[in-house]
This record gives sequence, C-alpha cells and structure tokens, in this order.
Amino acid sequence: ARPRVGYFYLGKEMYGKKLREMQVKDYKSIPIVVPDQATAYDAMCMMFMEDVGTVLVVRDINDIKTLVGIVTKKDLLKAAIGKQNMSNVPISMVMTRSPHIITVGNNESLYIAAKKLVEYQVDCIPVINLIDNQYELMGYISRDTITRIFVELASIHSV
Amino acid sequence: ARPRVGYFYLGKEMYGKKLREMQVKDYKSIPIVVPDQATAYDAMCMMFMEDVGTVLVVRDINDIKTLVGIVTKKDLLKAAIGKQNMSNVPISMVMTRSPHIITVGNNESLYIAAKKLVEYQVDCIPVINLIDNQYELMGYISRDTITRIFVELASIHSV
Repeated sequence: ARPRVGYFYLGKEMYGKKLREMQVKDYKSIPIVVPDQATAYDAMCMMFMEDVGTVLVVRDINDIKTLVGIVTKKDLLKAAIGKQNMSNVPISMVMTRSPHIITVGNNESLYIAAKKLVEYQVDCIPVINLIDNQYELMGYISRDTITRIFVELASIHSV
Repeated sequence: ARPRVGYFYLGKEMYGKKLREMQVKDYKSIPIVVPDQATAYDAMCMMFMEDVGTVLVVRDINDIKTLVGIVTKKDLLKAAIGKQNMSNVPISMVMTRSPHIITVGNNESLYIAAKKLVEYQVDCIPVINLIDNQYELMGYISRDTITRIFVELASIHSV
C-alpha cells in the first residue's frame, strides 16, 4: 500500500526515514549568549546587534558553560512597555529559567527538535548536554535552521 | 552519477523536485491583520492575544483587502524603548510599508517562499495577488509553516 500523510505524497521510498535520521549535532548553530549578571538592556542590545530573536543566558559552573535562562523579544517587549528603565532590570527578572526551558539533547534527532518547535510554538530551542544535572549549552536549533534545511533539500537536483 | 549537495544525500529519486512542486497556495495560513488606522498599541495587543510575531496592516481599496504594511516585534520593541505612549503612535510610524515588504505570489512555489525567508532573514512573508498594482492579501508563509511541513514529511512512514 502507498503511504499517504495529509495532502503530501512523496513516493514509495522512505523519505521520512531519511529525514528522521538527521541529527541535531550536525545542524546546530552557535548561540548568542549573555552572562546571568547582565541586564535586560544588555540582552536587547545583543538582539539588535546580532539580529536574533532569542538570547540565551549562561553561567560558568565548574568550568561548564551552563544554560540558566532564555530571553525572547516578547519578554523584552513586556518589560519595555512596563515603563521601566531596561538597564535597571536584571536579566533574571525577564528570562524563562531552567528547567522551564524547552531543550533538545545534542544526540537527539532533528525531527525531535522540529516537533518541539511546532508543539511548544517557540522560535528557538537550546541544544544541551546533561552533565551532573547541569545543562551544558552546546548550540541551538531554530525555525530558521529547519527552513534552511528545507531550502537545501529542495535545491537538490538529480544529475 | 549520484547527486550530492552539501552533507545531505537523499538517494537517486528526485526528492528535490517533489519539494519544489509544493505550492504556496496549498500551505498559506490566515494572517493576523489590523487596519491602517490602528495604533502601535493595537498591533501589540493583537500580537500578544494571537501569539504571533508579525501583524499585517491592511486597507480596503475598491473592496480589495490590500496589504499596506507589516509590523514585527522588533518594530514594536524599538517604539517601546523610545518611551513613547504606544497608544499615541500610529501604526504607519512603525510599520514597513509596501513596496519594501518582502512578498510571495499566491501562485508561486513554497520553495521560492522558503528561499526568501532565508535570504531576507524574516519570520513571515505575506502572500499576495497583484491586481491593478494593488497587493491583495491572500495569507502568509512563515518559518513555522516550513517547520510544520518538515515535521509532516519526516513523519511519513512507508507501510
């Protein structure tokens, strides 16, 4: 029988399986980070300078770059309309903190990461490596990562 | 010869061709809009209520819902840190206006839309239909659209 999912049909080959074999570690990007002593203003400057929508908050613990928080444009917009001076607002006041951050393991599949992006409706998922109950920050996967992969896959021409 | 593009190899079939056949009109979503008489505050409320990162600005011209602008969280964040009262800021002061908006035609391929998302580094591209030099708004394609499609494709199991 022919596999059919929704309105999209790709043929008899196991295209899905090929896609599920793609690994987070091969596609992750280098994250934009601020230390946990930064202010909301620092995070905002970083966002505009680096043109990203998410900044990750890290702390060095036992020489491990540990993920402790995540800040999005939405978090900063909420703070900004509160009429506060952003440079007086500690990053810890606006960030979402571990363990409430949606993460994906460095050794997981890209498919798992993409499903989390869709399920939790987030732009960006930090890639972590769990060491001694610490989240070592390894990178991130975003909707942009997946869009780039789509373009790359669609650009393949048989020769 | 076997096709190889970058580090990803899908096999002998023309997977790329299949992906390039997907159409914008089959995957577009219904956009969140505000009229061009709205304020920056209206756009922000819409963003939080609907949990989207982009709001489209429309005007009825000759009974056609015409795209005249686009507002992102970044635009609103810039306005908010300006210490202005957002409800006194007309949307036209913060929006990017046509023809500077990146758009895609209703009859174009999803591949073209995805390439524009990557090339112009935007989250969302309005889908338009050009009538008498007017941009009739038909929907939008976002990085979220493409991520959902990736998940759908990767979920296909041969049976």
